[in-house]
Amino acid sequence: MPNPDSLLARAEHLEQLRAAMARHGVDALIVPSSDPHLSEYLPGRWRGRQWLSGFTGSAGTLVVTQHIAGVWADARYWEQAEIELAGSGYTLMKVPAAASLLHIDWLAANLLPGQVVAVDANVLGLSTARLLTEALSNRGIGLRTDLDLLDEVWSQRPGVPPGAVFEHVAPHAVTTRAEKLTATRAAMAHLGANRHFMSTLDDIAYVLNLRGADVSFNPVFVAHLLVEPNGATLFIEPGKIDQALQQRLRADGVELAPYVDAAAALSALKIDSALLLDPRRITAGMRAAVASQVKVVEAINPSTLAKSRKTAAEVAQVRDTMEQDGAALCEFFAWLEGALADRANGKLTELMIDEQITAARARRPGFVSPSFGTIAGFNSNGAIMHYHATAESHAVIQGDGLLLIDSGGQYLGGTTDITRVMPVGEITADHRRDFTLVLKGVIALSSARFPRGTRSPMLDALARAPIWAHAIDYGHGTGHGVGYFLNVHEGPQSISQSAMPEPHTAMEAGMITSVEPGIYRPGKWGIRIENLVHNTIYATNEFGHYLQFETLTLCPIDTRCLDTSLLREDELAWLNNYHSMVRERLSPLVSGAALEWLTARTARVAA
Amino acid sequence: MPNPDSLLARAEHLEQLRAAMARHGVDALIVPSSDPHLSEYLPGRWRGRQWLSGFTGSAGTLVVTQHIAGVWADARYWEQAEIELAGSGYTLMKVPAAASLLHIDWLAANLLPGQVVAVDANVLGLSTARLLTEALSNRGIGLRTDLDLLDEVWSQRPGVPPGAVFEHVAPHAVTTRAEKLTATRAAMAHLGANRHFMSTLDDIAYVLNLRGADVSFNPVFVAHLLVEPNGATLFIEPGKIDQALQQRLRADGVELAPYVDAAAALSALKIDSALLLDPRRITAGMRAAVASQVKVVEAINPSTLAKSRKTAAEVAQVRDTMEQDGAALCEFFAWLEGALADRANGKLTELMIDEQITAARARRPGFVSPSFGTIAGFNSNGAIMHYHATAESHAVIQGDGLLLIDSGGQYLGGTTDITRVMPVGEITADHRRDFTLVLKGVIALSSARFPRGTRSPMLDALARAPIWAHAIDYGHGTGHGVGYFLNVHEGPQSISQSAMPEPHTAMEAGMITSVEPGIYRPGKWGIRIENLVHNTIYATNEFGHYLQFETLTLCPIDTRCLDTSLLREDELAWLNNYHSMVRERLSPLVSGAALEWLTARTARVAA
Repeated sequence: MPNPDSLLARAEHLEQLRAAMARHGVDALIVPSSDPHLSEYLPGRWRGRQWLSGFTGSAGTLVVTQHIAGVWADARYWEQAEIELAGSGYTLMKVPAAASLLHIDWLAANLLPGQVVAVDANVLGLSTARLLTEALSNRGIGLRTDLDLLDEVWSQRPGVPPGAVFEHVAPHAVTTRAEKLTATRAAMAHLGANRHFMSTLDDIAYVLNLRGADVSFNPVFVAHLLVEPNGATLFIEPGKIDQALQQRLRADGVELAPYVDAAAALSALKIDSALLLDPRRITAGMRAAVASQVKVVEAINPSTLAKSRKTAAEVAQVRDTMEQDGAALCEFFAWLEGALADRANGKLTELMIDEQITAARARRPGFVSPSFGTIAGFNSNGAIMHYHATAESHAVIQGDGLLLIDSGGQYLGGTTDITRVMPVGEITADHRRDFTLVLKGVIALSSARFPRGTRSPMLDALARAPIWAHAIDYGHGTGHGVGYFLNVHEGPQSISQSAMPEPHTAMEAGMITSVEPGIYRPGKWGIRIENLVHNTIYATNEFGHYLQFETLTLCPIDTRCLDTSLLREDELAWLNNYHSMVRERLSPLVSGAALEWLTARTARVAA
Repeated sequence: MPNPDSLLARAEHLEQLRAAMARHGVDALIVPSSDPHLSEYLPGRWRGRQWLSGFTGSAGTLVVTQHIAGVWADARYWEQAEIELAGSGYTLMKVPAAASLLHIDWLAANLLPGQVVAVDANVLGLSTARLLTEALSNRGIGLRTDLDLLDEVWSQRPGVPPGAVFEHVAPHAVTTRAEKLTATRAAMAHLGANRHFMSTLDDIAYVLNLRGADVSFNPVFVAHLLVEPNGATLFIEPGKIDQALQQRLRADGVELAPYVDAAAALSALKIDSALLLDPRRITAGMRAAVASQVKVVEAINPSTLAKSRKTAAEVAQVRDTMEQDGAALCEFFAWLEGALADRANGKLTELMIDEQITAARARRPGFVSPSFGTIAGFNSNGAIMHYHATAESHAVIQGDGLLLIDSGGQYLGGTTDITRVMPVGEITADHRRDFTLVLKGVIALSSARFPRGTRSPMLDALARAPIWAHAIDYGHGTGHGVGYFLNVHEGPQSISQSAMPEPHTAMEAGMITSVEPGIYRPGKWGIRIENLVHNTIYATNEFGHYLQFETLTLCPIDTRCLDTSLLREDELAWLNNYHSMVRERLSPLVSGAALEWLTARTARVAA
């Protein structure tokens, strides 16, 4: 999506921004890719970095001085950023994937003692603020966080999204709001706190069994929540919650207050309060609003831990949802194979895949929306990790090769996220080797057992080992947590080499996590195979509790791409068992071409 | 080893210590298990914790207040500490293995604001000091680091060890002192430093190609080293280096100064100095000695990185050393099997094993000393991870079961560390299963390939996965770095779940690391299989440089303990290939019973 504002407009905004900086005595301004809720997907109001620079990537930080204007972005976005920033006056500053705070080092190195950096505390994470403060103060550089300079130059800035909030109800919501509030208060008491303030939208949606549509893909709404011993206050724009829902919230002790009053409520806390805050899930601005006499307890939001550990009833819902999602995929893939057979006519595009897969899901009960922008990448586009076909830019599927499709759905009974790769026409031995190595990675991790409490990053190497064995690697994490009709990316677990294995990353029963190794050959093809898996108890003995994964995702893995000579006997058995289960569970839900496709694609593979 | 001081003497020392604390207004005293060089093995002078409490374990921290005297120790030492501390007035405070700083939390929680904690800055690591300072100051508790209260009560305290220092020379030392000093200065310049102060004994021994015998097992000597642009000063007790060696050091620009003058030299640095210090490898006392105008650059000691990356010539020496060590082991095991056949006479003890294995090594060229205290544990003693048979306490080997032997040698051409387990009489299916699972762990990690720069802790799960698969785990790290005729435990790599995967833990070509998974069944048996492996380049391609392990250790793994039904074909092939190599390389070096033993124990195993 090209920036709607012209180069001229962007140059003008930059000039105005520098004038505002000069007025306030600011030497460098940071505009992070962030909002007051530290969200992954930002409402328009907080896409200031995009509005200023034209760079639309989902991660990246803008820094402006009187002489330099730059966007710090990692390798996933370099190609896109070069195009979008061309002629804008902003320079792309390339950073390694795992060094998202490198602009801080740059500021520390390039500013002089006595100069002043500004960043709006309302969109600055507290833990990031601490790193920034330390780095700058070590060099004698000042930091102001009380200015929202963007507001001074962005005349048409959007407001807070006005969309309606709705309730997540039984049978899909299996734990009541009252139960979740009770559990939250118990966790607070355990930490010595009697107040708890939350800003992260999925935490709030989880605790209150509410959902919204304020951003794409994640069914959340913009709000803050203060939980107190005998009640709770939801800070939210007026008009988003109707009278009937207000009544039901009140019955559970939840009162509404205007969104803008959240900080004032923190300032007004009684001094005998003990306030629980999560420094990774709250802004520096909110922290600063807390009266200095109030005791602050810092810990991970209890709801972040609680919502990651799905209940048995939630997992039962997810299993049903996976059957519906799998059935939709059978219908989609049956259509796709037909369309591929006719691809010589040049009418099949990546964009049509996106449309058809969403349409197939939309016919299924409980479907709400896609859970992220579909990635349908043919050959070299499959090697671009965050590729998204658009009306303006997408490939026609012609010729031979590999087609990668990463998609997912939000359903009332769970969130799905799946990647499959299929052969188009004739494929080569190199395609087959790469595909089979990725599958070996999926099998190795999916079959693993490990002690409860194992730090999730430590499992990453299990999926990589079969790929590393051929001197190949992939530049992304192996697995992320997935919400329950909530964010498709959620913590606290992270099967990734760039995550530090801290205590909160521990694997616990009930967690749902993606398993998605890959191989990417720039300019040639990309392969990723992704399932969601669920932590179940395998055994309990003198060595403790042991977990294993239940694979939740139900969809054939295309065996036409295999080099079976690379599979061990136990790996082949895993694949055949998986396909038996997929066939058994999806057959009742599909018919006709979809059933034929399912039957063909789950056929037993011999060594 | 029971404490030589009586309970009465220890009570008296504790009383005197509390009187000294009261004199100085100190409410709590910390005596860490540490010396001015942050060593693993402490010279007698710095074994204050042991002298006071009677607890002889190699890790543990003593804390004394007017009301409580405690020793904080992890699970490895609980059994031993309970016995040694009984009746001493000191309480065992149990801490989890990975929480060696829990006494800090205890002090923060149990002292009142305004009270004062004392710890001698001369034996307090700088990075630990920072944690301590933060934890206490957050609670308004004071910290004094300028007192050595131990000195006031320990009248017979030993001095600094007087032993002679000798030179590590060619062909075993393959890089000259001049070359190492040049490389150190280049690394300093790269970090923007022109001075570098080192306190860690293995770093100093490495840079100067000097060795000593001031502590058991590690061939190091007590000293500090200051490297400057045109020279270096070695701070060392007079008399440890003879005239001839002084001359040779002087030729390389290294002058001697009294050991006690090191801090004063830091205080006297010119203010235009830029001093490189490693906060994990220097005491708070030395840091405090640096004049405040001097610029301090903090980074890992360049020699810590350099010495971990063995040169090709060093690895060639290690291969020769491994052949000698393996030949010694053949002779030892041939003797042991004969002695086991006669075990009914009740004369074979764990202690004799220690003596015989050391005697066999001592007959080999280049042998200097054991590289650590031999662990020879039969059945339940094998399950005690840090078991060491002593004259006072050791088992007679009678009956059936498993015998675990963990031993190693210091040779001029390298340091060895190996664990093997052998069957005694009839063993059970449970013994075989556990043994085979541990072997599978060794094979999985030893066969791994991975990108250069992979953080070593991330590899830990590869060795555990086959053991986890049976809901079993082990409570220690999988692998540690090993020095070149230096410390048997060295960094910066660490294949361990308790190590944070920080940048300095990256795997690099030339590193030598142990691979040593295990299974321990308290009261029953312990199994550990340990080899040393060497990081070699496997491939270089568009994905980067890939490493693989060369197994350096040469000694049969007892196939009489196997349950071959648990081994995959590729695992059996690994074992047979390993045994072919062991037989081929050791056969020329042994004869008679040792050769017969080697031939029998390396026989091919069929599926």
